[in-house]
Amino acid sequence: MTYVLYNDSILDENDVAISYKDRGYHFGDGVYEVIRVYNGQYFTLDEHLTRLYESAKKIELEIPHSFEAFKTLLHDYKETLKTKNGSIYVQITRGASDRNHLYTKEEKPVILGFEVKGKSVDTKQEQGVAAYVTEDVRWLRCDIKSLNLLGNVMAKRKAFDHDCEEAILYRESGVTEGSSSNLFLVNNETLYTHPANNLILNGITRQEILAIAKELKIGVIEEPFPKEVLLHADEAFITSTSLEIVPVHTFKGDIEATISVGTVTKKLQQALKEHVQKKTNASV
Amino acid sequence: MTYVLYNDSILDENDVAISYKDRGYHFGDGVYEVIRVYNGQYFTLDEHLTRLYESAKKIELEIPHSFEAFKTLLHDYKETLKTKNGSIYVQITRGASDRNHLYTKEEKPVILGFEVKGKSVDTKQEQGVAAYVTEDVRWLRCDIKSLNLLGNVMAKRKAFDHDCEEAILYRESGVTEGSSSNLFLVNNETLYTHPANNLILNGITRQEILAIAKELKIGVIEEPFPKEVLLHADEAFITSTSLEIVPVHTFKGDIEATISVGTVTKKLQQALKEHVQKKTNASV
Repeated sequence: MTYVLYNDSILDENDVAISYKDRGYHFGDGVYEVIRVYNGQYFTLDEHLTRLYESAKKIELEIPHSFEAFKTLLHDYKETLKTKNGSIYVQITRGASDRNHLYTKEEKPVILGFEVKGKSVDTKQEQGVAAYVTEDVRWLRCDIKSLNLLGNVMAKRKAFDHDCEEAILYRESGVTEGSSSNLFLVNNETLYTHPANNLILNGITRQEILAIAKELKIGVIEEPFPKEVLLHADEAFITSTSLEIVPVHTFKGDIEATISVGTVTKKLQQALKEHVQKKTNASV
Repeated sequence: MTYVLYNDSILDENDVAISYKDRGYHFGDGVYEVIRVYNGQYFTLDEHLTRLYESAKKIELEIPHSFEAFKTLLHDYKETLKTKNGSIYVQITRGASDRNHLYTKEEKPVILGFEVKGKSVDTKQEQGVAAYVTEDVRWLRCDIKSLNLLGNVMAKRKAFDHDCEEAILYRESGVTEGSSSNLFLVNNETLYTHPANNLILNGITRQEILAIAKELKIGVIEEPFPKEVLLHADEAFITSTSLEIVPVHTFKGDIEATISVGTVTKKLQQALKEHVQKKTNASV
């Protein structure tokens, strides 16, 4: 049986039906998170839930649970799933109503959660991946982890069509992030990444890495940089909840370059693994 | 009973259940149209369906019906509904799959259609409405009529929170369109509107008006203009399938101005009504 979280209930997936009137289905009117489970324990659950509440607030969607009640719900769900290592996806939409761009603030939000079975990323973490550099056509509120993901979806497909694992996006103002990851460069043992403003999603793994860099006394510069900087990076890596830290060995598309998997990247990978281990008693 | 179009079937709404795995529900991965029915007949059905196929093609979503078969389906649906005057909404999503940004091109698209009961717009058409001028934060593929509508939804809500009927959006490059309408200005009896590029949705009503303007020998300039031009417009109106032509009598927000409902707007309203009447034998 596949268990799905639906509002307050944990149901067999066959008993879950989404209303054809759900605003998530007409407008992408909702927000989401993907939370990692290691060794049977959530990793950075508070951070993910905090961001979920922040995203919801930014679109004026009121989550019908207190933070603690939502945590309990997610814990119960994980226990039901008996997940040892995996990811839990959770989204909340504004709920069902007669279709109208204008929401009334009277809608009843709908919560949906399910387990995402990830593939092993060990080889990618070790050997790195190719990334496709292409224009960032997304909206100007990428800080909201919303269900409006078509720009990301199109970029990801384009990347795969060019034998790349991920798309790296840039605007006139500089390189922003990946289609489902954040991007870091290393130059002279200093980390470079886009600042956490409206143009990127401030990844929880991104935040973990910034904290680890501080611990390890690795310098960090959070500034936008032009895509041409990718040509001369000492190291490059992408980060996300599912990938953790994955080196980029090749840029294709609007920038073409090859890069070695470097020592700073490896040091951060090791430190993140230890960090996860400490927080979850996991052997990773 | 409320009839809903679901794939090839016309069902009681209680028998329609959307999969919690539908990519429309996770990514807004789909496209849509709203088609007007006058006097029991679709208005500009071919134009709407053509745009639906174009939008679908732009996101690499293959509609599982020929154009003619889709038309027949929509005709059957309208006959079942017995709609005399109203609007039919139809969307198509990429369908259900395990959640992954990357679509495989093997997904089975899902069609959904339902009737939208509109309110009378007679008073708005006669007296005009207020519009709220605010920044356009949407993505750079507004030419695709997609389900990624959160930017539009947020702008619409902001407009209503300021006692306005519609939001008028602008970028650095100029005023683009409304959150669910196109915008026209009149200056010296010439029409001004944003060109149909990636920054706006090329409305079917917009296209009808351009054709009518040609017939009536009213000059048209399709160029972006800065928002300050709104301060000095002789006339302004918004257009959409549901509003037809509605004058703007007040701009609020980042531009504040009042405008009279002018003669060119009235002439176009009358011509559009005659146009609809001719095409559908409707008395409107």
